[in-house]
Amino acid sequence: MVPLPDLTMRTSRLSINLATVRQQWNLREAVEACARHGITAIDPWRDQVAAIGLAASVGAIKDTGMKVSGYCRGGMFPAPDAAGRLAAIDDNRRAIDEAATLGAECLVLVVGGLPKGSRDIAAARQMVAEGIAATVPHARACNMPLAIEPLHPMYAGDRACVNTLAQALDLCDALGDGVGVAIDTYHVWWDPDLPAQIARAGAANRIFAYHICDWLVPTRDLLLDRGMMGDGVIDLPGIGAMIEKAGYKGYIEVEIFSAANWWKRPGDEVLQTCIERFSSAA
Amino acid sequence: MVPLPDLTMRTSRLSINLATVRQQWNLREAVEACARHGITAIDPWRDQVAAIGLAASVGAIKDTGMKVSGYCRGGMFPAPDAAGRLAAIDDNRRAIDEAATLGAECLVLVVGGLPKGSRDIAAARQMVAEGIAATVPHARACNMPLAIEPLHPMYAGDRACVNTLAQALDLCDALGDGVGVAIDTYHVWWDPDLPAQIARAGAANRIFAYHICDWLVPTRDLLLDRGMMGDGVIDLPGIGAMIEKAGYKGYIEVEIFSAANWWKRPGDEVLQTCIERFSSAA
Repeated sequence: MVPLPDLTMRTSRLSINLATVRQQWNLREAVEACARHGITAIDPWRDQVAAIGLAASVGAIKDTGMKVSGYCRGGMFPAPDAAGRLAAIDDNRRAIDEAATLGAECLVLVVGGLPKGSRDIAAARQMVAEGIAATVPHARACNMPLAIEPLHPMYAGDRACVNTLAQALDLCDALGDGVGVAIDTYHVWWDPDLPAQIARAGAANRIFAYHICDWLVPTRDLLLDRGMMGDGVIDLPGIGAMIEKAGYKGYIEVEIFSAANWWKRPGDEVLQTCIERFSSAA
Repeated sequence: MVPLPDLTMRTSRLSINLATVRQQWNLREAVEACARHGITAIDPWRDQVAAIGLAASVGAIKDTGMKVSGYCRGGMFPAPDAAGRLAAIDDNRRAIDEAATLGAECLVLVVGGLPKGSRDIAAARQMVAEGIAATVPHARACNMPLAIEPLHPMYAGDRACVNTLAQALDLCDALGDGVGVAIDTYHVWWDPDLPAQIARAGAANRIFAYHICDWLVPTRDLLLDRGMMGDGVIDLPGIGAMIEKAGYKGYIEVEIFSAANWWKRPGDEVLQTCIERFSSAA
């Protein structure tokens, strides 16, 4: 029996994206640790689920009463040929099924970058639009919201060619119901158009997830040097207020890839710091 | 006497930003090497000019008949207090004077990021707008165009809080004559709005400089891992065609910061490769 957490109203909205402690624990260990710390929601990654199995993952989540604020991740739609693009769509349907089995509130989509050998980013973007469109019917049938995550422009080549909130929302407008956005402060904080686009996303009820971490100065690695809230230069309270004002009432998910720092610390210290900084710096 | 170069019409538009060979040569050596290779234009950095002196720099440029496609760089307007912001404006006036003495076609502005200790990027952007506005009268008096360079969003914290071409052009619209943009493929290639904004810049006669290099996948360092044209994923011919169609007829400037690769090679090899790739991949 997990002790009842002593949580303020806001802290009850904290979710831990399990990438944050991926080097310390497997999924069951991470979920149990979150429960020990009074955290009530998590977002697991597909490889973490695969590592212990889907049934065992569901079991760990049920045993702790954990909510699943999202599932990471679908996407990666562009491919050099039609067979590759069809395979990606199939894989996204499986990810939707897994997300539904886990009881996730949405499937996060990291849409993919340029296909190998290509420099045609407009074509890659078209592949993304077509890939999501082909995935939407199954997502709707499963009642699984798809959350397009615009990634920082430094990932346009290799991870995601959807790079601004405006671009993601244009996609949503074209795709219709059941598609929204995952807004991650790390990816969007720099955008001069951010206030307007957050308001637009809220007005359209498209904010399906909100992820936080900080941007370190200097940043020493393009992928694995994200900062704990308060250690960088992002105005997290300011962006958080915009998100609130836009009507978002869901989980606030901490997602930190940090090979040289947080991934090397004890997982309990990481979770405790997430909780403290969630209150003091976000 | 420098031998007459065997250059095609297009190659006569090649300029070398001297950051590309900053580890190999001082300004005079670099200018003389460019002349040996039949290159007719360069863009020096202020520290390179300072290292041998302004008069010696002018001498080296005159001796070789080199054109100066731009001068790097003014900017860095945000500061924690008014005294710091005034000092930045004074420094930009000096940079304008140097650019005029060197016969540069424009002064490139890297506008600066967040002031130390600040997370208020809107305030930093306001400081930039005010700083450029305070610099414009002197620039106009000296007939020195100011080229605002939008920098990649990964530099928003520490180098430049102007991060899209649209944002730079909005600034230009507010500032009036004598202010335009330096478009660098490295900074803007990912932007879904790029075609529209290049057309907008051309229609307003705001394209003052065009810089090229490539985006490597993977990129191993945020600042010093830029690629030679053809080694990365940017559609340089495609962007070049947009720039041409927008009416730009000026120099095409190669600017590559590459600590682990090109800065370690012999300067003559770097210049020869720039010339070859300028024809084959840009």
